Amino acid sequence: MNKSEKLHTRLIERREFITNSIKAAGAITLPVAFLAVPETGRSNNRALQTGSYTVQDVINIILKEIPGAPFKQTVDTIKSGNADQQVTGIVTTMFPTVDVIREAVKKNANFIIAHEPSFYNHTDDTKWVAQNDVLKQKQELLQQHQIVIWRFHDYWHAYRPDGILYGVLKKAGWLSYFQPGKWVINIPSVSLRDLVDHCKTSLGISHVKVIGDLSQKCEKIGLIPGGAGGQIQITLAENEKPDVLIVGEVHEWETAEYIRDGRLLGSKTSLVVLGHSVSEEPGMEWLVEWLQPRVPGLPITHIASGDPFIWM
Amino acid sequence: MNKSEKLHTRLIERREFITNSIKAAGAITLPVAFLAVPETGRSNNRALQTGSYTVQDVINIILKEIPGAPFKQTVDTIKSGNADQQVTGIVTTMFPTVDVIREAVKKNANFIIAHEPSFYNHTDDTKWVAQNDVLKQKQELLQQHQIVIWRFHDYWHAYRPDGILYGVLKKAGWLSYFQPGKWVINIPSVSLRDLVDHCKTSLGISHVKVIGDLSQKCEKIGLIPGGAGGQIQITLAENEKPDVLIVGEVHEWETAEYIRDGRLLGSKTSLVVLGHSVSEEPGMEWLVEWLQPRVPGLPITHIASGDPFIWM
Repeated sequence: MNKSEKLHTRLIERREFITNSIKAAGAITLPVAFLAVPETGRSNNRALQTGSYTVQDVINIILKEIPGAPFKQTVDTIKSGNADQQVTGIVTTMFPTVDVIREAVKKNANFIIAHEPSFYNHTDDTKWVAQNDVLKQKQELLQQHQIVIWRFHDYWHAYRPDGILYGVLKKAGWLSYFQPGKWVINIPSVSLRDLVDHCKTSLGISHVKVIGDLSQKCEKIGLIPGGAGGQIQITLAENEKPDVLIVGEVHEWETAEYIRDGRLLGSKTSLVVLGHSVSEEPGMEWLVEWLQPRVPGLPITHIASGDPFIWM
Repeated sequence: MNKSEKLHTRLIERREFITNSIKAAGAITLPVAFLAVPETGRSNNRALQTGSYTVQDVINIILKEIPGAPFKQTVDTIKSGNADQQVTGIVTTMFPTVDVIREAVKKNANFIIAHEPSFYNHTDDTKWVAQNDVLKQKQELLQQHQIVIWRFHDYWHAYRPDGILYGVLKKAGWLSYFQPGKWVINIPSVSLRDLVDHCKTSLGISHVKVIGDLSQKCEKIGLIPGGAGGQIQITLAENEKPDVLIVGEVHEWETAEYIRDGRLLGSKTSLVVLGHSVSEEPGMEWLVEWLQPRVPGLPITHIASGDPFIWM
């Protein structure tokens, strides 16, 4: 494995690490579905012949193309509803927010494929916070409209090329610079200020946070959408020494302070924090294009969950 | 224990949880100092008599006033230098950044008391990222100037009243609303917009992120400076149903999405995210006032590490 491949493997392993840590600590009850291995290869032919798909049919069709799937351990489980439900339409999104659910209902789509959790923690443990009224109301809303949510996180990152990264590169107009297996691209030289403007305009982002000299020239870009955590982000910065590291979300005590200190010590690596949701949304938008020919006849729409914040 | 006390206990326990998880996973080498129990009660009298203090003297003087100290497990260890070093001056700060270190050197202060990590991860594991050039250069800078860093996190939160919370309430002008042991205060009714303005002005913060209706009236405020994590933040929101929850940092997939969904489902609870560093800095500023009479003759200064970001 080269460094980039190792980093990608660690991105997946990180999720396992979190899971193992939680299990070892014994503090959290895992949802029953957590260790379930989705069934593959069943009824795909029937679905394609009849043009009628259950949730499980769609999942099977997707998993057939993911290297190593099904995984023994993954957070990519059904979070709401029933795998046998007939799908009336699919919505892809980052976070299956209450707004996204209501919009899906309006579109008569009863299957949401979401990249991130439904219930406010990585494993979607519904007992993580006792007596969570918001969570209960969300479950009632989902039940009322018989909406199925499936998380498509580990598998989409394990696809080659990584489905999220590919979607982001595509939307940013950077596909021609992409080298499979790499988290670094080299683009024509541009100032950090213009790079930030390009990210905001091309990805439809209103506000970002930056550490760096805005007049600095950038060519080598480390790009890790989402919230991969400091260990992965800092490792990429150390291994590749890019001009700028672009990520979705940081722990401020990890990557932000590392970059701040690094620059004070002479490193050129700047940091752009796009926001978690908006940084990966293009990957769930790209999923529509990827999935549509694989489930002909099924209506698929992307609904952006969007930046939750007002910036003041 | 009432709910607030339970929450406070969990704030401390969370750190233990993280530590246990890391140990159980076996993936990370703990620094040797991690389990060290600082010595107490030694040489305090000598220090007070001579007006000359070692680092350990200062730590002992502080720990005498922390309930339950010394803790068997804590991240509050010496991160750089030697406990026997004579202290020429103390600097308190949130993050011992390279800028803070250089400023301390200028002030001839060789002991930094920092609330947050020195080396970009919670346990200050220096092997967390292999071949970390930035970390090595920082260690060289510290060694060159013989700077000792001690972390004062778990103990300052365990002080009664919590040293960080008290400092923030003091700086925000909210001490008169404070009820010991509570993470909620009731203030005269104010719009969310005016509350945000007050936080920015009184705490010296340039930018914040908000989820909520800016015209909404706020009286009951849940206040958890720093990055306590979604489980603690959401538990407070559920238990207390405040008008607004003010925090330092969130995981976007936890508290931010919980608040966004909650409001879409009729909850009134808004969210203000101040930034990790700036949200707790007043607690390290307050430490100067608290500590000075306990170490007469020693120069103590607060240096704010500040918001690392440019907001664009």
